[in-house]
Amino acid sequence: MDKTIENFGLYLDLYELTMAQGYFFSDRNNIHANFDYFFRKNPFNSGYTIFAGLEDFLELVEKFKFGDQSIDYLYKLGFKSEFLDFLKTFRFNGKIYSVNEGEIVLPNEPIIVVEGNLIETQLLESLLLNIINFESLIATKARRIRYTAKGKKIADFGLRRAQGLAAIHASRAAIIGGCDNTSNVLSAFLFDLIPTGTQAHSWIQSFGDELTAFRKFAELYPHNCVLLVDTYNTLKSGIPNAIVVAKELEEKGYKLSAIRLDSGDLAYLSKQARIMLDEANLNYVKIIVSNQLDEYLIKSLIDQESPIDGFGVGTSLITGQKDAALDGVYKISKVDNKPTIKLSEDLAKVTLPGKKKIIRCFDSENKFYADAIVLEEENMHEIDLIFHPHNINKKCSLKNYYKEAIISKVFEDGKIIQKKKSVKEISEFLNFRFLQLPDEHKRFEFPHIYKVGISKKLLDLRDELLKRRDK
Amino acid sequence: MDKTIENFGLYLDLYELTMAQGYFFSDRNNIHANFDYFFRKNPFNSGYTIFAGLEDFLELVEKFKFGDQSIDYLYKLGFKSEFLDFLKTFRFNGKIYSVNEGEIVLPNEPIIVVEGNLIETQLLESLLLNIINFESLIATKARRIRYTAKGKKIADFGLRRAQGLAAIHASRAAIIGGCDNTSNVLSAFLFDLIPTGTQAHSWIQSFGDELTAFRKFAELYPHNCVLLVDTYNTLKSGIPNAIVVAKELEEKGYKLSAIRLDSGDLAYLSKQARIMLDEANLNYVKIIVSNQLDEYLIKSLIDQESPIDGFGVGTSLITGQKDAALDGVYKISKVDNKPTIKLSEDLAKVTLPGKKKIIRCFDSENKFYADAIVLEEENMHEIDLIFHPHNINKKCSLKNYYKEAIISKVFEDGKIIQKKKSVKEISEFLNFRFLQLPDEHKRFEFPHIYKVGISKKLLDLRDELLKRRDK
Repeated sequence: MDKTIENFGLYLDLYELTMAQGYFFSDRNNIHANFDYFFRKNPFNSGYTIFAGLEDFLELVEKFKFGDQSIDYLYKLGFKSEFLDFLKTFRFNGKIYSVNEGEIVLPNEPIIVVEGNLIETQLLESLLLNIINFESLIATKARRIRYTAKGKKIADFGLRRAQGLAAIHASRAAIIGGCDNTSNVLSAFLFDLIPTGTQAHSWIQSFGDELTAFRKFAELYPHNCVLLVDTYNTLKSGIPNAIVVAKELEEKGYKLSAIRLDSGDLAYLSKQARIMLDEANLNYVKIIVSNQLDEYLIKSLIDQESPIDGFGVGTSLITGQKDAALDGVYKISKVDNKPTIKLSEDLAKVTLPGKKKIIRCFDSENKFYADAIVLEEENMHEIDLIFHPHNINKKCSLKNYYKEAIISKVFEDGKIIQKKKSVKEISEFLNFRFLQLPDEHKRFEFPHIYKVGISKKLLDLRDELLKRRDK
Repeated sequence: MDKTIENFGLYLDLYELTMAQGYFFSDRNNIHANFDYFFRKNPFNSGYTIFAGLEDFLELVEKFKFGDQSIDYLYKLGFKSEFLDFLKTFRFNGKIYSVNEGEIVLPNEPIIVVEGNLIETQLLESLLLNIINFESLIATKARRIRYTAKGKKIADFGLRRAQGLAAIHASRAAIIGGCDNTSNVLSAFLFDLIPTGTQAHSWIQSFGDELTAFRKFAELYPHNCVLLVDTYNTLKSGIPNAIVVAKELEEKGYKLSAIRLDSGDLAYLSKQARIMLDEANLNYVKIIVSNQLDEYLIKSLIDQESPIDGFGVGTSLITGQKDAALDGVYKISKVDNKPTIKLSEDLAKVTLPGKKKIIRCFDSENKFYADAIVLEEENMHEIDLIFHPHNINKKCSLKNYYKEAIISKVFEDGKIIQKKKSVKEISEFLNFRFLQLPDEHKRFEFPHIYKVGISKKLLDLRDELLKRRDK
């Protein structure tokens, strides 16, 4: 794995290097270019997407280089020595503009803009897409779960079902989106998250006898004792034994923290458990559940008034199941200081030309009203009307709305220039922004579509380029 | 990321450390234990699963240790000094038994068996599940795609949609499953895979003029020139320009390798492209397609007799969409030299006790007939009858079938003891085994269910433990 770190510049698709060498030998490496990162569809049929992964991406850009082994390898693949000499000292020296991590973002918005020469902007393509698509997917999933679970605790239990090393960033994104803590110790260590966890069925089985296993655990961890009650029989054995241990803890001046249910009908079992615990005067003992949960099952449990205090969520949170990828793309919008577009018979797939910025508009109650995608040089206060990007008969007036540009420079001269934020700060920023998003966009089923439009100048520029191509 | 490597022992769920400390302070660390890795359901409603990830897992077991920073971190979390002193020198010293990587495996089979003391066997849980669940998922997906695509080329184009760092192992698993090559250069470098790739739309756009862009590319890469023809208009501009360049290449003694279609109706466009190329006497120019492909779309394109020579597959291959995780679990089957089970009201979720092995039975044509899960000490030649694990009225005779044990020791004394295999060797082993799997298990829709049964002795042992628990 050391080999991975030293050669992380190879974290790209071969075509980026093929093109880079092409630019190098056609003397095009100093041509100025501009790429936009955007996606076309919110994941999970959601009404919004949470932007995450920015700090991880930028840190990897700082480290992006071609070590000696990479150079030898590329030589063997047939890349030319002169180009490889150039790669040896390659560093990204362009500029990166971005929305804040934790921001609420929408389809078609240029969330990240990468500016520099053709080679350096091209070489970052896959790295950016890989990190940002994934963390944004998971942060969005986590936010949906947080929204459903309201104030209850949510723990990320996903490491075992995460897609291999994806786990490292996934737990970070899960906390940004709204999880309280994670079972993944490496991620907790790397990103200063709160680790959590108690015992597995194997702990109980290793003692053979459930009561002894519970007693031993309570003796070792009296301050934070959570007992897993479904190894043999939840109602006949697990909960009664947990009650015995809770009473013994009380005698020693401690309190049993919680029991955990990991199988069976969680609505039924949690209600029975609550009754049994309350009858034993253990109303302070919390009930935590896990087992194939997602936002829909959590909603169902809450709708059934299940007396559950916390949820452990694994597979669906950490893989984004049922959507496993955000469809973000990285498209060139300006080359040699001239705006460019990629055509398509489908207007929705024609890219937006030029260097752009996103303007967010707020209503009188400080709620998000609409977003405008405009050309960089436009004065946001003069944007009074926006057009649907694919159906220009749909217009929206922005008169009298408060406006804010939500994209700023974050990388320059080979270094991150934005202030380093903790995961907690990013997560709090999201909480703040989420309050500003009207509730109808938060629904699971057929959420109200948030308005994103383009300015008249951007529309005209696109039309002009379309016409020029049609000739 | 250096921090990641030095502290890779933290790649676990917190409860494993909590339990380990518990075992340590209850003098249970020398108790012998046995864990099984198995899954309950083939992914994608498939009739089989491809086992992958073994070498990566074993290499990480060799490196699994707690660096100084980990120890400091765990101390801050409240772990005790005496236990941390133990962790400082911790190495896995148990034994690992496994099926060969690339083997065809089925639900409920103990594919990997980990044997050692309670602490060391417990600490590997999440690492094993994380790596094996994921690579097996992707290898299975790749095999489904390979099966559909028959002899045509398949390239992994998934890096940009992979779940973050998951990409590193995913491309390896994709090649094991049957992809020919990958666009992911880092994985190609690490695992000796074949990298592939040509150009993006941005290459064409950077020149403004498509023909110039094609010409420049052909000039730089005359031996392996693939042209992306859908930047502006596939039929009116892309293919005609590619034909011009192909003719120019011919004059210089080269041949255009292929064109690539990345949008639109691929069945229609590939047919039109073939006609246009053939009319220009370019029948040697291949047609490659990409854009949201999966095994179902590829099947549809082939059913429509689309003249396609190769497929670039991204999201669905590299994330396993629509299933994003294999449901593999790691369950204790023996403790202190006594078999143990986890109960459940659902017999399908009761674990199989004891140390076990898998026996594969072959018919007279050397095709797979059925698998038997039996106790380690059983003589495979005496197994004449197996029982469905959850419906014991279903039996199957194994008389007169050739039998082979498919699990062997792969790790001992802190080291991998199996011969290192290249990805190519693993992939070839799978090709060989796949020929032995009867075709009816390979269907996409309602595949025939492969028979996996348990021996009488194992059945009796489970019943005895169930009865003992019921008292």
